Amino acid sequence: MSSSSAAPGRGDKAEKLPMRDALVAAAFRLFPERGYEQTTVDDIVALAGVGRRSFFRYFPSKEDVVFPDHERCLADMTDFLAAGPADGEPVRRVCDAARLVLLMYAENPAFSVQRYRLTQQVPGLRAYELSVVWRYERALAGYLRARFAGLPDGILRADVIAAAVVAAHNNALRSWLRSDGKGDAEAAVDHALEHVREAFTAGPVPPVAEGPDDVVVVVSRRGAPLWRVVRELETALGNG
Amino acid sequence: MSSSSAAPGRGDKAEKLPMRDALVAAAFRLFPERGYEQTTVDDIVALAGVGRRSFFRYFPSKEDVVFPDHERCLADMTDFLAAGPADGEPVRRVCDAARLVLLMYAENPAFSVQRYRLTQQVPGLRAYELSVVWRYERALAGYLRARFAGLPDGILRADVIAAAVVAAHNNALRSWLRSDGKGDAEAAVDHALEHVREAFTAGPVPPVAEGPDDVVVVVSRRGAPLWRVVRELETALGNG
Repeated sequence: MSSSSAAPGRGDKAEKLPMRDALVAAAFRLFPERGYEQTTVDDIVALAGVGRRSFFRYFPSKEDVVFPDHERCLADMTDFLAAGPADGEPVRRVCDAARLVLLMYAENPAFSVQRYRLTQQVPGLRAYELSVVWRYERALAGYLRARFAGLPDGILRADVIAAAVVAAHNNALRSWLRSDGKGDAEAAVDHALEHVREAFTAGPVPPVAEGPDDVVVVVSRRGAPLWRVVRELETALGNG
Repeated sequence: MSSSSAAPGRGDKAEKLPMRDALVAAAFRLFPERGYEQTTVDDIVALAGVGRRSFFRYFPSKEDVVFPDHERCLADMTDFLAAGPADGEPVRRVCDAARLVLLMYAENPAFSVQRYRLTQQVPGLRAYELSVVWRYERALAGYLRARFAGLPDGILRADVIAAAVVAAHNNALRSWLRSDGKGDAEAAVDHALEHVREAFTAGPVPPVAEGPDDVVVVVSRRGAPLWRVVRELETALGNG
């Protein structure tokens, strides 16, 4: 995934940035100096050396310049989900889709940590972030709803799993952001998503493949005669 | 739970309403007539026959008058969670806490449906609602984090279960609101929450009680010698 966001620590002074990136870079130079609320769009365009209309061509509002990559990431997620095989494991697919968000953050830790701190300080940005998270969640839920169509409680399951995946992802992502982007974010998110996948793919175990190490499960009433259970067992083990 | 919200259909013309309720009633008489954005706080206080300062004594902003009962419900939820027995089943407790929100909506279906329609139309109110939902989720997660303290992945589990509970609750609540408040909201929410409780209290199956109808599960590698599996089975069945 290529990022279009300006990157503190990427040496954006040395190179000529595309206009969109220049606007993000200017905004994130001004926010720590003046504060988010005190920085105006006019300040940003002045520093970036572009006109006010250029800003609004890329960003509908000042809030949007804080989250410059979410629209692209949402589009990537939607494409990724649509490209999934129709018979693939749906919970795994939404976990993999959620990883795209983490990759966007992990692509540029310094920028992500700076943005996280800003978001913690400005209630309006927290609200904006909640609306972005909601859109990711609806993208995942929409995919699952289609995959679970016709199943009992399919819509309910879809919504619950999507919320659980987002919560697990954000739990790991926010730990990493709070640690100033230290440690292995991908491993932490993988671990968190695996936790959700296990909770929701417990269900009936699919038939195991033949092989010396695969597993046979026999369920029997305790009162059943032993000979009957052994016969079932022989059949299952392929010894009968 | 007693409601302090003004209630369309509760006959608020016939009785003298407390000031807070009168403001809510006035707001919800004006919103459908003029539109939410076009209705000012001045319009609301004029209709309610009170001063502007009275409005802001009860509601920090115009958005808050749309959701007059959430603060009380959040406080009720926090109290309810704090009053839970230390050895109770934590997932059941958060499900019961989530039911408090449903009860608030179900208390006054006409008002809840009217508010739902308004919220769907006004992006600012959607954003406000997301922030309220987030606060409920954090209340549930905070309780679970404390209950799971010291357990492996305790914080992760807490966050995931809280999100799943909120998603299940909202799935049922929104279906009910979309159906104009018809049908049994409590039964629908109970069903949705039970789905989550089952997913997260599956874990290791507790030992089964002795009895003619209980079940024995034997798991074996397919390559294991039959005599060995039978010996395990005899022990499990109590025949060995």
